[in-house]
Parts: sequence; structure tokens; C-alpha cells
Amino acid sequence: MKSDVEIAQEAEIMPIEEIANKIGIERNAIELYGDNKAKINTGKMEKLESKKDGKLILVTAITPTPAGEGKTTTVVGLGDALQKIGKNTAIALREPSLGPVFGMKGGAAGGGYAQVVPMEDINLHFTGDFHAIGAANNLLAAMVDNHIHHGNDLQIDPRKIAWKRAVDMNDRQLRSIVDGLNGKTNGVPREDGFHITVASEIMAIFCLSNNIDELKEKLKNIIVGYTYDDQPVSAGELNAQGAMAVLLKDAMKPNLVQTLEHTPAFVHGGPFANIAHGCNSVAATKLALKSADYIVTEAGFGADLGAEKFMDIKARYANVKPSASVVVATVRALKMHGGVAKKQLNEENLDALENGLPNLLKHLENMQNVFGLPTVVAINKFPTDTDAELQLIEDKCKELGVHMVLSDVWARGSAGGEAFAKEVVKLTERDSSFTYAYELDDPLKLKIEKLVHRVYGGKGIVVTSAVEKEIARFEALGFGRLPICMAKTQYSFSDDKTKTGRPSDFDITIRGVSISAGAGFIVVLTGSIMTMPGLPKRPAAEKIDINEEGKIIGLS
Amino acid sequence: MKSDVEIAQEAEIMPIEEIANKIGIERNAIELYGDNKAKINTGKMEKLESKKDGKLILVTAITPTPAGEGKTTTVVGLGDALQKIGKNTAIALREPSLGPVFGMKGGAAGGGYAQVVPMEDINLHFTGDFHAIGAANNLLAAMVDNHIHHGNDLQIDPRKIAWKRAVDMNDRQLRSIVDGLNGKTNGVPREDGFHITVASEIMAIFCLSNNIDELKEKLKNIIVGYTYDDQPVSAGELNAQGAMAVLLKDAMKPNLVQTLEHTPAFVHGGPFANIAHGCNSVAATKLALKSADYIVTEAGFGADLGAEKFMDIKARYANVKPSASVVVATVRALKMHGGVAKKQLNEENLDALENGLPNLLKHLENMQNVFGLPTVVAINKFPTDTDAELQLIEDKCKELGVHMVLSDVWARGSAGGEAFAKEVVKLTERDSSFTYAYELDDPLKLKIEKLVHRVYGGKGIVVTSAVEKEIARFEALGFGRLPICMAKTQYSFSDDKTKTGRPSDFDITIRGVSISAGAGFIVVLTGSIMTMPGLPKRPAAEKIDINEEGKIIGLS
Repeated sequence: MKSDVEIAQEAEIMPIEEIANKIGIERNAIELYGDNKAKINTGKMEKLESKKDGKLILVTAITPTPAGEGKTTTVVGLGDALQKIGKNTAIALREPSLGPVFGMKGGAAGGGYAQVVPMEDINLHFTGDFHAIGAANNLLAAMVDNHIHHGNDLQIDPRKIAWKRAVDMNDRQLRSIVDGLNGKTNGVPREDGFHITVASEIMAIFCLSNNIDELKEKLKNIIVGYTYDDQPVSAGELNAQGAMAVLLKDAMKPNLVQTLEHTPAFVHGGPFANIAHGCNSVAATKLALKSADYIVTEAGFGADLGAEKFMDIKARYANVKPSASVVVATVRALKMHGGVAKKQLNEENLDALENGLPNLLKHLENMQNVFGLPTVVAINKFPTDTDAELQLIEDKCKELGVHMVLSDVWARGSAGGEAFAKEVVKLTERDSSFTYAYELDDPLKLKIEKLVHRVYGGKGIVVTSAVEKEIARFEALGFGRLPICMAKTQYSFSDDKTKTGRPSDFDITIRGVSISAGAGFIVVLTGSIMTMPGLPKRPAAEKIDINEEGKIIGLS
Repeated sequence: MKSDVEIAQEAEIMPIEEIANKIGIERNAIELYGDNKAKINTGKMEKLESKKDGKLILVTAITPTPAGEGKTTTVVGLGDALQKIGKNTAIALREPSLGPVFGMKGGAAGGGYAQVVPMEDINLHFTGDFHAIGAANNLLAAMVDNHIHHGNDLQIDPRKIAWKRAVDMNDRQLRSIVDGLNGKTNGVPREDGFHITVASEIMAIFCLSNNIDELKEKLKNIIVGYTYDDQPVSAGELNAQGAMAVLLKDAMKPNLVQTLEHTPAFVHGGPFANIAHGCNSVAATKLALKSADYIVTEAGFGADLGAEKFMDIKARYANVKPSASVVVATVRALKMHGGVAKKQLNEENLDALENGLPNLLKHLENMQNVFGLPTVVAINKFPTDTDAELQLIEDKCKELGVHMVLSDVWARGSAGGEAFAKEVVKLTERDSSFTYAYELDDPLKLKIEKLVHRVYGGKGIVVTSAVEKEIARFEALGFGRLPICMAKTQYSFSDDKTKTGRPSDFDITIRGVSISAGAGFIVVLTGSIMTMPGLPKRPAAEKIDINEEGKIIGLS
């Protein structure tokens, strides 16, 4: 089998104007970035409002395991398969982060014969969106410290600054720093730190804004820190929102690329799925809905985190309604949930599979019963899967009224996903009774409790008195109607990553709450969340290279 | 008078393909970035080698004063005027840095009716080159600290790391930091700091590399720090050069834009003019030379720094030979050199002008006699200039055999530069006896002494024994044949910024030397050089904004 980058480099890529043309985007709305990437200037697209929305299909997954699920690959392959069976289709994905490419992870644009291209560009600087987000983040940081340096009229307490700097690199050395050192001309000494760019609140704001005005309003609302009197200080008080929006103006335009099979692919925005909501931009999703009849998209991590936030944060803010959902699983990952070690996954093990299946079933219940979506299970096929194993999954799903389909798109592209695509089309013709897991009018604690009961299947929440006070304070400050963004381990329904499968009889301990007043959600922390990754001992960067003809080597 | 951004926004911009076509660049070598910006893939241009080079005209200036000289404006206007008189012309400029746009400086793409457009894009992210340079810089930094964190096989002494991180922002808070804090999973505590991106050695390397192979070789040679035994450790020992080159591959392609009058403008690269060589990329200059018959370019600061480095570093490494030079001056700035305060500049003052003129005359002597270039003086016109003042300048220049021309391109575009352009064409028809200020075979100290004697007009150099030892060490390490990059105040020929005009009888004190082994020069420090600017009390960012139609406001 060829590597991802080899397959991508051999692809015949069509001029992006032709791809755009397939979904009715005309040349004057296209801003080319080379021949194969474009930004779409929605301001130049007429009659968008009057067009009917296409059908939105959300691809989500079981609780992640080290065995991998292949969610992005499934989105790409399903899009190609829908196109193959004659449907006017587009996909909408997150942009990969640059930093992890040089660490362990490699690229994030699908895999095998279900990839988005040009894969190297998408995994590197792409159209510069993340650099723009980093620059806006760091301009605000510089303005905060500059304000303090020049007299601190707003009385910002340097010990209570809530705004970190950002860099799109895996750089653990920058997690905890002291800056402003070396005398009075060089700032004010204080504790500080860096996020990786995707963890910036600007990324979340960017992804939730429909237009420049909304963007500016959200940027203005960012809380950068607190005064000596504990009053929040906003980016608006520093007059930073205009210049930040200027830095973001081009980034805001959705990016268009294509799959290996020339399906239009909007790849735009990529917020963290723990401290943020983990799905691509509202702007791209809305443009895709106006352009194509079938739109396949994904949400980060498992369905308890990514899909939940997709519904309760993104879909709610953007007022879009998915028509169906796909839950991706692999036989191998389900066996891991059933207690099998990674090394033993090649052997048939029906007992382990049966033990692991409740993880999938709980996600299916959530998608169908909590969120009211017609749902199908897609098994991402591996050569080691046995007929008996597949049959067992199919039978168990049937008990919930859910069909199981096989997806072989990694190895075969659209040819490996035709039955899958047909099943999805059928699903979207069913009535959907889409709804949310909680109401915005619910008090903050009740919202969290509803998530724990309804989505995670837990008993309740444990809240310290300090957190109780903080929640009360947020409500007093007028933030009680914001949705919740849970920062929880992705490896379990519970807050204990060792509890795989379908745990029950557990409480979720709330260790802290913080506010993303710009993005518009309350982040609920259930453990320590890392917002700046590190590099491994042998980083991928050591093997990535470019030859004299400009061909990239070693990007996986 | 309209503001720069207003003039730029009213411009009719031609499709960049048409601009490229004027100088023989065909569609298949163009990578569009929107409709008005492009990168040129020189690898796709046939027969470049066989084409004859055009004539290179270097625009430099007197010693800078707070009155301003208008060097970039002059380059743009001269280019437009050459085009107007029928010459096939291109200009080659540095890219502006993003950080200062939000501080005090505003944009850096010319002014008035002599600007490069799209001005907002060029001053903001443009085609992402600086972000790529920042990312490559920070990848190397992360790899250095990651190496130490994971066992430090190379025995790098954390107290002797010579590689800083970079951000394209005016952020004094990051000048001096301590990072790697908060326990053993978060790096190794050490002193550190950030440059602004343009001050990164990667920027200098990027600007001096002809192709990817040369780029990789130079990146490999970067010295990131020293071992506990004081041996240099290179980026190559960390296997970082391949991944860094991958990050820089698109940035390496020269950018093409246009002036308000549709003259092709290569805007590419922009290293500092103190710790680096301060002119646009070799790749862009070489492409311009193969594309047009007349190429106008500029060098940073006054001619003692910018033009000298242009000759001794860039032209030498790139093996290009300028045909003529233009020294830009204003009556006002010359009066400041003669001791007049900024407030009194509107009044005629022939005595002060006569006192200040030796500054201009010394630069002219240097351009003609040291570097052997046919030279003209361009007076950037102001309404307050009197006939008597202009006559005095003309007479004094004539004594050196140099013509003076008036440039009114800021107010009138090419119409204000026709006589100027004709004079420049005449100059380029003269024989040039272009040479360097020193030979590479000169010992390092002799090179510095030659610069001080010949270019600055000083007596000699003062060197501490510590610096003597360092110089001897560089020669022992095999770096004796590198050219010199002087980091000296731009406000005086001497190392004392209060000595305006033409100081004499001074020594230059060498406070330190450092090596840019990747870029290939020895930096000689004659004072403290700031590589990270700060924001003023009221940063420009507070007034920069974007309206609902996407129009940028407040960018000057």
C-alpha cells in the first residue's frame, strides 16, 4: 500500500474553478490561492439567501481508542460515494493544525483513497487562516501588556490576566513562562503562557461568526482579564476588535479544495474539541448548505463530546439542523472497549466485542433519542474483521432500529462506500425530530447535569464550593444563558479515561469553570486540559524533507 | 490630500496575469493569491538562464532623520516614470513587517501617488511569507528545547542557546522571558526571548538563497547554541533543515504585485537592516533582472548601512552588479543634518543646508568612489523647498560631478518623475566600475576597519580584548572569509546617533560580534540593537477598523 502523501501526490487535481462550478459558485466569487485552493467571497454570491438548504449529514464516532476510527476518512469517502451515486455533494471539514504535523500525528486530511488534496498544502500553511488567528490572538496579548506598561488606566491586575499568547507549534517550553523581565523598558514581569493557536478563543469565535460584524462583536466581548476589583476587562475596552477583525478578514472566507475524486470540500476553521466546540466554521457549513444538496461534515472526538457540541453550540448558534447522523466505529476499537489489548486485536473475539458494543449503542441512543436524528452505523473495514464479528454488531444495532453499513473507502475510495451512501440518502428522507440536550434558559448547573444524565449516562455532578461560587458569579454577570462547553477526557463517557465501554454509576467532578465570553460559552473543566502539546523524542520533523524538485517527503 | 489608504482603495488594479504578461511571465508560472497578487514559480519559467539581465538601479538615501526621506516612494515613482518614458521596467521592494503596522509606523508600501497595491494586503498577511518564516524559526526553537528535554544527547548548554523564538508583532513583553517553568513535564527552565519575525536569521537566509537546495544548506548551518564544551551546535545536528525548508517552500517563490500605475512590482523578503542585510530577496531580484530591462530596487536605512550591505553582502553572494545608484534626500532632512529643529524646517535656511550637505556629499563619494557606481541625487520635493536651497544642493553636487534631479512622484506619480527617469537611463549607459568595500580574503578586523575608514569616514575601531578573542575564535572555526554585517545606529555615520551631518575624527567601538553561520555573515555590534519593538501608548491598532462592506479604515 502506498503512503497517504504518495497517493495524494499522484492525484490528478482539477482546477478549483471547475470544482466550484459543480456547486454553482461562479468565478467572480473565487479568490484563487494557486490553482487548487480557493477562498470563496460569499459577499459576491448573489441570491444565496433565497436558495434552499441542502441536507446536512453529521459524521461522528464511538469513544476514541488507540486503535483509531477513521472519522475524517469516512467523511471524505461518504462524500465521494454520494457524488458517485449522482448526488450533488460537498463535504465540510476542519483545517488541520500545523504544530502536530511535526510531532507525532502527521497530517489530518483523510487517508488512503479518501483524502482531501492538495494534502501537503492543507496540512501546512494552507491559505494562512491559522496564522491570521495567531496574529489576532497575539495582537490582543500585546495590547493588554502594552496597556499595563503605559500606566494601566483600566487597572488590570497582572496576576489575573486570562489571555494567553499563541503559536501554531508543539512547544512545551512555552506552556509556563515569566515574561516582561529585564527592567522597566521591557514590560511588567508576570506569569504567562502560550496555547497552540487552535486553542485560542479567537479560533472558536472565528468558527461561530457569520460575518465581519458578528466577528467584531464577539471579539469585543472577549474577557482578557480582571481588574484589581475583580471586574472583567474586555477586548472592547482596549479598542482591539477592529484591528483584530482586519487581521481576520480574509481568513473568514471559506476555503474550497477537493477530494481525490473531485468532490468539493470546504475546509475551514478547526477549534479544539475540549475547551472549544471542535467543528468547522459556521460560514463554511452555511455556504456548503446553500451550494450542494448533500453536505457531509464531522465533529471532533466521540459523539458525547463532538456531536453534542455540534448540536448544542454550533447548530444552535447557526440555526442549522442536521438531517441524519453517522456513527463511525471499527471492530478493532469496539474490541478495545471490551478490554482487549492493542496487540491482540487481530484475533476474532466475540466476547470482547460484546463487552465493547455498549459504547456504540449508547452513542446511538444519544443520537436517536437525545438529539432526534436518523442514524446509521458505519463500520470502517479492516482486513482482520470476521463475518461473525460484523454480524454481531449488525444484530445489536438492529435491536435499536439502526442499520449497520460497511465502509471500505480507505482502500477503495467511493467504490467502497456506495451501499453506505445509499443508506444515508434513505436516512435523510426520514423525518428528523432534531432537538438539543438542554435549553439555554436552564440554569448553568442544570445544563451540566442534563449533559451528564442524558448524554454521558452518569449519575450527577460533584461541584466544590469554589466552583459553585464561580457559577453563581457568571450568572450574576449575565452569562447564565450561555451554552456549556464540556472539557472532558475524550476516552470515556465519564471523566476517568480508564473507564472505556459504557460506564455507569459515575459522577462527573467539576474542577473549574471559565468563560469564553467572546465565543459565547461556559467552559466546564473536568480535569487538566493540555492546550499546548509537546514534541516526542523523535519528532516527525526530523524526517520531513523536500527534494530539489520541490516534492515533499515524509509527511504522513 | 487624500490618505495613502484612500488613494490605494480608489486605484483601478489590473489583473495580475496582465502585469506578469508585460514582463514575459506566462500564466503557467503564476500562482494566484486572489486576483491582484501572485507568486511566481520560477521552476516553471523556461529559458530564464539564457536571457540577458536588465539594468539594476539601487535607490539609497542620506542618513535618516525624523524629517523623512521617502525612499520607497521614490523607488515606486521612478519605476512608474521609467515605464512612462517607454522602458520595460519592474521594481523590487522589501515586504513590510506586520507588527509595526499596529504600532506607530503605519504601512510601508510607498505613499501618495507612488504606491504599491493592494496596499492593505501587502501591509497585512500578504502571501504569508513572514508567517512561514516565523513558523520555521519557531519549529527550530521547539526542536532545540525538545532535544534538551528528551535527554540532551548533543550536550547543549541551556545557558548558551543562541536561537530565539519569533513573532510578527511589536511585543516588548516577550523581549526577556524565562520559559520551561512549572515542573519536569514542561521543559527545562532557562532564559529566553523573542525577536520580531523580520529579525530572525531565517529571514536573512530566505533572502540570500537562490533555490531550495541552497536554502536547506544555509538552514543546516545555523548555529543554535553551544555545548557545555563551547562547541557550536547546528540546526543540521537536530535534522531540522528539511522540515524548515518544507515550511518555506512556497514563501521562496517571489511575489508579484503592481504600482498604482501598473508597473510590475516584486515585493519579497524583508530582513532587518542592522543585524541583517536589509534588502529584498535574491530570488526576486534575479527574477526581475531576467524579466525587465530596468529594475529599480532599494536598500534599508542610509547608504552607509543599506547600500553598503547591498553591495558587500547581497550583490556579492548573488553575483549581481548594479548599473547606477540614486541617493534620495530632502531639503528638510539636509537642514536637520545642519542643526535645524524639526519645527523650523518650513523656513529657508541656507546656512543650515550648507552645514548639512556634507552628509549627502559623503554618501555620494561612497557610491561613486568606493563602490564605483554612476550616481544621481534625487530631491524628494516638498512645498516648503525654496529655489535658492535647491540651487545650493545642485551646485554642491556638481562639484562632485553628480547631477541633482527633482522628484515629485508622491504628489504627481510618474508625471512628477520623468526628468528623473531620463537622467537615470543616461546614468545606466555610462560605464560602471562596480566593486566592493573590502575583499572576503581580508581578515575580519581589516574588513571592519575598511568599512570604518572608507565608508563611514572614521579613524579606526576600538575593540575590547573579549571581542578580539571572539574574532580570533570565529576565524579558528573557519568563518574568517564571511562578509561583515554592521549593526550600527542608522542616524549617524559614527556609532553615536547624535553626530549628524558628516562627523569626522571618530572611532567605532565594537561591543560584540556574533555569527549568522546560516545566512553567512558576521554581525558586528556597535551598540544595543533592539530586535523586538514595542507599541506606543496609543497604538495605531486602536484606530484600525473594517466596516461591514469589508473596507479597511485607519491604515496609513
